[in-house]
Amino acid sequence: MRITSARNPKVKAWSELKTRRGRLEQDRFLVEGAREAARALAAGIRPCAWLVWPERAGAEEAARLAGAPVYELSEAAMRRVSYRENPPALIGVFERPARRLADLPPDPRRVLVAVEIEKPGNLGAMLRSADASGADAVLVVGDAVDPENPNVIRASTGAVFALPLAVVDHAAARAWLQERGLQLVAAAPAAGRVYWEADLSGPTAFAVGAEDRGLPPDWLEAADLAVRIPMEGTVDSLNASVSAALLLYEGLRQQRRA
Amino acid sequence: MRITSARNPKVKAWSELKTRRGRLEQDRFLVEGAREAARALAAGIRPCAWLVWPERAGAEEAARLAGAPVYELSEAAMRRVSYRENPPALIGVFERPARRLADLPPDPRRVLVAVEIEKPGNLGAMLRSADASGADAVLVVGDAVDPENPNVIRASTGAVFALPLAVVDHAAARAWLQERGLQLVAAAPAAGRVYWEADLSGPTAFAVGAEDRGLPPDWLEAADLAVRIPMEGTVDSLNASVSAALLLYEGLRQQRRA
Repeated sequence: MRITSARNPKVKAWSELKTRRGRLEQDRFLVEGAREAARALAAGIRPCAWLVWPERAGAEEAARLAGAPVYELSEAAMRRVSYRENPPALIGVFERPARRLADLPPDPRRVLVAVEIEKPGNLGAMLRSADASGADAVLVVGDAVDPENPNVIRASTGAVFALPLAVVDHAAARAWLQERGLQLVAAAPAAGRVYWEADLSGPTAFAVGAEDRGLPPDWLEAADLAVRIPMEGTVDSLNASVSAALLLYEGLRQQRRA
Repeated sequence: MRITSARNPKVKAWSELKTRRGRLEQDRFLVEGAREAARALAAGIRPCAWLVWPERAGAEEAARLAGAPVYELSEAAMRRVSYRENPPALIGVFERPARRLADLPPDPRRVLVAVEIEKPGNLGAMLRSADASGADAVLVVGDAVDPENPNVIRASTGAVFALPLAVVDHAAARAWLQERGLQLVAAAPAAGRVYWEADLSGPTAFAVGAEDRGLPPDWLEAADLAVRIPMEGTVDSLNASVSAALLLYEGLRQQRRA
């Protein structure tokens, strides 16, 4: 189907998926670019519609699309839907995954708990680190950016589609961790113990907060153990995705050895 | 001194410092923002001029500036010099450090070799990781962004000022590493050995390439050892600053224990 007007009601509805509110209301989200959309598809995320800009190089990808209706959009319509200054040849509209605790693997060995991460680039980079290190699950906790934010998707380089991921409030996250018998390790600059001195050889969850504020006090209190990443230079913090990677890879190292 | 015209020759010269070419020709660079400029000053980088936008909140910082003439710029002039859409109240013009091998510490224990890193955000983030891990020096090698690029400065959160840093070609870098008796460890996805299985307890240099291309073949050949960071998920690479942090912190762990 061809849509030329940027004021078409379908185009309006798709353009609203650029906002968090629109994603929550419609339970849909956008994936811009053929490579990114292929990753979402490969991870089993269900497509609802394919939006193609036929005049654009690469649009022939559209011929291979399946599982959802294909719409050919005019430049004006594509520009209204896209988040980017230069819209891609293809945008996929996908069903928003439920992101429930009940869908996470039952016996995780390493879990990342991302607490109140508001910056999309930071959450995306944390997901990339978690996926690379083989984390079994990620909990996105509290007042945080939603994982279907376009900049989370981009920074995660596709990890956001493949990783088992739950979006939960603080209490539900801590109850789930306790039920699963996971040791809760909190990253805290003031902790006495360096992370590689901790015993991480059993099932462990690593709680990491935002770079500027760190973890809220109730997470520090709830933790079985607080660990510190040594800061040996003049900068006073690491990027949250670097902190997450250091902890998760140390967990992987110790668990492989055990 | 007050400068109102954006066409003033001084303003023109400062605005040229936004380009690599301008920085090389004038041997100066810009630091935008009072906090960032304070970091450069604290690290002993020499100021040549302070550019202040008096109408802007925070401009009273100017009263505390020393060591260089203070210029009050009009909004139009400030906008011409600044790299940002919203120029800050203060821009410092500094002398470009020489960045020579001869100025590095004589007996380094951990060195990061950043090979052909072209993206400013990536190099800056690598410097932040290197500084946090207590690296003694960083070599910026080959066809790379210059460390005084504004986005390197921003992403490094000040590490670029504090870290001993040399900008060198491939041959000079390798000769220096050999002279210092540093074990050269190359990060390579295809290596058989996992990084934590390598003996990093002696003086070690870690060579890390760009995320998409990795290290050039001659660096892999020159290395004493190639190591791999396990990739356990679906993404096929880590951010270069994450790779650098994993290697440098494993070096720190082993060297503390030794």
